[in-house]
Amino acid sequence: MNRPMLQIALDHNCLEDALSDILAVGNDVDIIEVGTILCLQEGQKAISCMRSMFPDKIIVADTKCADAGSTVAKNVADAGADFMTVICCATIPTMKSAQKEVKELQVELYGDWTFDQARQWLDIGINQAIYHQSRDALLSGETWGEKDLEKVSKLIDMGFKVSVTGGLNVDTLKLFQGLDVFNFITGRGITAAQDPKKAAIEFKDEIKRIWG
Amino acid sequence: MNRPMLQIALDHNCLEDALSDILAVGNDVDIIEVGTILCLQEGQKAISCMRSMFPDKIIVADTKCADAGSTVAKNVADAGADFMTVICCATIPTMKSAQKEVKELQVELYGDWTFDQARQWLDIGINQAIYHQSRDALLSGETWGEKDLEKVSKLIDMGFKVSVTGGLNVDTLKLFQGLDVFNFITGRGITAAQDPKKAAIEFKDEIKRIWG
Repeated sequence: MNRPMLQIALDHNCLEDALSDILAVGNDVDIIEVGTILCLQEGQKAISCMRSMFPDKIIVADTKCADAGSTVAKNVADAGADFMTVICCATIPTMKSAQKEVKELQVELYGDWTFDQARQWLDIGINQAIYHQSRDALLSGETWGEKDLEKVSKLIDMGFKVSVTGGLNVDTLKLFQGLDVFNFITGRGITAAQDPKKAAIEFKDEIKRIWG
Repeated sequence: MNRPMLQIALDHNCLEDALSDILAVGNDVDIIEVGTILCLQEGQKAISCMRSMFPDKIIVADTKCADAGSTVAKNVADAGADFMTVICCATIPTMKSAQKEVKELQVELYGDWTFDQARQWLDIGINQAIYHQSRDALLSGETWGEKDLEKVSKLIDMGFKVSVTGGLNVDTLKLFQGLDVFNFITGRGITAAQDPKKAAIEFKDEIKRIWG
């Protein structure tokens, strides 16, 4: 079993705040995500700034792309992104056209996706999926449960590299023990901590403790 | 039957190109859409520029929001957007939280949405839907057909104000004759014309001819 990576999601409303947080923790994470909110607020520049600051990190553009896959993917790749997210209800032609322009696509699983769809994504060569407890679902009281873990496990068995995200903290990581998770994504689990750098290191230490 | 409105979608890669096109046609359309590509490239500024240039037009932020509804909606409303799009596979909590922050939400219909879901959107007070031939579907050879028109008609009967978009031109408008369409959305149908202003006026004239 591989050791899962740690991804920080920068979901700030402005570049200045994102820069301040990433300065503190950028060297302690594996993947830097320019979150949807930040993409929509600051545009392509948010991606290119992360690329220039952290040339050796994996950069994700969380565009949740639903259409115009080719253009969106080319734009974020030009800005320096390695991975780009597409929404699960995007059509297969959208995913295919995006795929040609960026190193790897990640399908964001929201709402009523099916394992039949997941099979189609694998069939066209997409092997990353992001299993999500949406922020709004969490706010309305939902949390990680057995049904989530079963779905994550099934996706991994199908051959996906699965990232998990939504309300994660150091204490919830052990829920995933025994699962070959590719990557844990957290935003405020790190950025809202009193000492974000310490929080990032604690995440990494707990991942090492569990996955070795 | 109301006369449908005309919306221009600005799906440019940079603000400069969008500004040049909107200068030419802004006064001849009813609704100005800051398209997803432009939102992702230029950020909030693309919306606020349109608002400052055209204070009396309806401005749409085509975010295709899938999560963090409240934050995304507040941000685009702060920048001056009247309408914001959400993707159909967003959860009901996401749609509800977005709804509180912006004048009107529009659900973008992509992939395998159902009329049961559409009923849920109406139940929470969302009465706008965008029926889409995705650009990538069009590129892969699909076009407007009877099955599309039936779905548009059913959505209108359910109580939705339906916008239609995807590969529209002046000649395809008559396909929708007899349907109480709320709004026709076109991007390159206007911006790629040799004379964009003339193209916008031709769209409006054809709408008047058909819907009175």
